[in-house]
Amino acid sequence: MNFCSECGDKVSLKIPEGDTHLRHVCDGCETIHYVNPKIITGSLPISGDRVLLCKRAIEPRYGLWTLPAGFMENEETVAEGAARETQEEAHAEVSDLQLYTVTSVPSVSQVHVFMKGDLVDDSYSAGEESLEVELFTEDEIPWDDIAFSAVKSTLKHYFEDRKTGVFPVHTTDIRHR
Amino acid sequence: MNFCSECGDKVSLKIPEGDTHLRHVCDGCETIHYVNPKIITGSLPISGDRVLLCKRAIEPRYGLWTLPAGFMENEETVAEGAARETQEEAHAEVSDLQLYTVTSVPSVSQVHVFMKGDLVDDSYSAGEESLEVELFTEDEIPWDDIAFSAVKSTLKHYFEDRKTGVFPVHTTDIRHR
Repeated sequence: MNFCSECGDKVSLKIPEGDTHLRHVCDGCETIHYVNPKIITGSLPISGDRVLLCKRAIEPRYGLWTLPAGFMENEETVAEGAARETQEEAHAEVSDLQLYTVTSVPSVSQVHVFMKGDLVDDSYSAGEESLEVELFTEDEIPWDDIAFSAVKSTLKHYFEDRKTGVFPVHTTDIRHR
Repeated sequence: MNFCSECGDKVSLKIPEGDTHLRHVCDGCETIHYVNPKIITGSLPISGDRVLLCKRAIEPRYGLWTLPAGFMENEETVAEGAARETQEEAHAEVSDLQLYTVTSVPSVSQVHVFMKGDLVDDSYSAGEESLEVELFTEDEIPWDDIAFSAVKSTLKHYFEDRKTGVFPVHTTDIRHR
């Protein structure tokens, strides 16, 4: 950040009075520009003993597999965002969405939230940001080609929890070096 | 937003190619400025049959009661943010933090995340953003003077769940008119 989005003046990095963190503060109008973590919201679409994955058609992690997910938008709920991303990336509908994993990734200032749901009608196809969309059993999952740690961790939890049929919400922190 | 924070040129509201939402896009360098929901992270500090509330010394909702919480900062986990806010607002330490409620408030583009924890040492006092900090039993809680719907909903869940001793994660959407 170089300029104030309010008045166009230059900004400087400083700790505002009463604050504990460095912020971009406008040299002119003194607006403090806060930058906060972003939420990635997505779904774990389930069909029998299989889950739906998307092969990424965009960077980062082009060509690797992921659950349908993306940046949560303003004025939507976590569940609405998860359903929207599933529609956009996999042209798929999920019902009965239930919160399943909440993963903090402080190195990139993100929180990934996945909701588990039932794939409706077994209907799906690749959206603009996907190369392919496919259903996988646990044994078929391309474990070495999963795009993000939060996705891999969510899939691991799911197949572990299937053994008991109990699916508590899992909270995980992922620390990259 | 009036100016580009990258180059200082004017921005216009438009839907970028391949996008579905209106964004502020720079007329000069074409940077797209995304604005996404913010996370409020906080704790539900528990001591026996009582919970810790803070009386707000700042707007909005000056003088009303809340759980210690605030905007999650970059480069921290949800739990670290909850512990930090509890220290800042109530000079209190919480242990064994467990995810407890996730509340979407789309009207203000926020997601409130509360973690339940044990108040360590029964030690607390008002931080800079609090007028008072106090422990309350269910009967003592000033239900009509709670600052935020997500806080009231979290407290209601907690005292309900106490009856069974089981504390599942609750996902709630709050829609203001």
